[in-house]
Amino acid sequence: MKILFVGGTGTIGRRVSEKLKEKHELILAGSKSGDLQFDMTDYRSIEELFGKVGKVDALMVAAGGAYMGPLQQMTEEHFYQGIRSKMMGQINLALVGQHYINPSGSITLTSGILSEDPIAYGAVLSTINSAVNGFVVGAAGELMQQGIRINVVSPGLVEDSVEAIGSYFPGHNPVEMDRVVNGYIKSIEGIRTGEIIKVF
Amino acid sequence: MKILFVGGTGTIGRRVSEKLKEKHELILAGSKSGDLQFDMTDYRSIEELFGKVGKVDALMVAAGGAYMGPLQQMTEEHFYQGIRSKMMGQINLALVGQHYINPSGSITLTSGILSEDPIAYGAVLSTINSAVNGFVVGAAGELMQQGIRINVVSPGLVEDSVEAIGSYFPGHNPVEMDRVVNGYIKSIEGIRTGEIIKVF
Repeated sequence: MKILFVGGTGTIGRRVSEKLKEKHELILAGSKSGDLQFDMTDYRSIEELFGKVGKVDALMVAAGGAYMGPLQQMTEEHFYQGIRSKMMGQINLALVGQHYINPSGSITLTSGILSEDPIAYGAVLSTINSAVNGFVVGAAGELMQQGIRINVVSPGLVEDSVEAIGSYFPGHNPVEMDRVVNGYIKSIEGIRTGEIIKVF
Repeated sequence: MKILFVGGTGTIGRRVSEKLKEKHELILAGSKSGDLQFDMTDYRSIEELFGKVGKVDALMVAAGGAYMGPLQQMTEEHFYQGIRSKMMGQINLALVGQHYINPSGSITLTSGILSEDPIAYGAVLSTINSAVNGFVVGAAGELMQQGIRINVVSPGLVEDSVEAIGSYFPGHNPVEMDRVVNGYIKSIEGIRTGEIIKVF
């Protein structure tokens, strides 16, 4: 399969792309690294990316951030950072991508455990992760009519992030990277659609 | 209780406010009707609203819209309409409202069944409803530390909307208005927090 992988050099993406490149042709795209650079917060930059890449069999996204901080001091701008990046960045990649994905192809996005198992300072991520899950649930039926599947991998705190952000997740059991990688493999090589693939 | 009710003259809000005014002091706010007019898509308008209203025991929101249409023609602007209105309109009311709610007070927002039971043309609403649910799950813990509860009522297709939009919801069982009203009563007069009160 020819796979466009956004965020394929990140904490999770690096592990997934190591595995996928054994069997598939990967095009890595990111803000600074990979084969192609683009800005996922900019709809036109996404259109330009697909213009360069052309048709693919799968789109995968493991990219996008959101603000973490105390709710009492939050204003809308803290939310809009995550809306433009992890939420609409991924949704826009899917909206544009639907026109470039070959029949029987798939889209795989990334959310995270905070949609249902919240932590202090994580209200924006709980919101954004839920939005991405909701998009996948909502879009799956119409994408199926186009012959395209869509799923979202929702990882818990992953092993490779424990050192950097583990202190925000008291009592969370770190998830083995191999299990996270398998979530993406399941979405790409499996047959399900509209699934929130929980890896925690 | 003194309750600020945004959308208290809408399809659902009208029924809820009829019931609540038997026991509580209601201040109805909306874009065109009610006691006070404001623009829920404008953060400063929300700050002005609370500046006029002052301290309350509860904030309720049954307002905000989102685009419905085919996924194949969707662009980001279709999403941002709902983000500014039903998603960030409600979240901003909660963010500002947390500073105006008396101890033991509550916030009640509104999402809807499409977050988990999608329909054609409903991808934006599935996304936005999920985002609102995720915000409530994510914000509940930090609001509890301030002595404030937060819940969200997620209604199915309500009886009073069947004539206007029922054809978009094939096979959905309309929900009796009394059950929807009870969802809001449960949130305001009950003790739970961080709950997605599903009424379908």
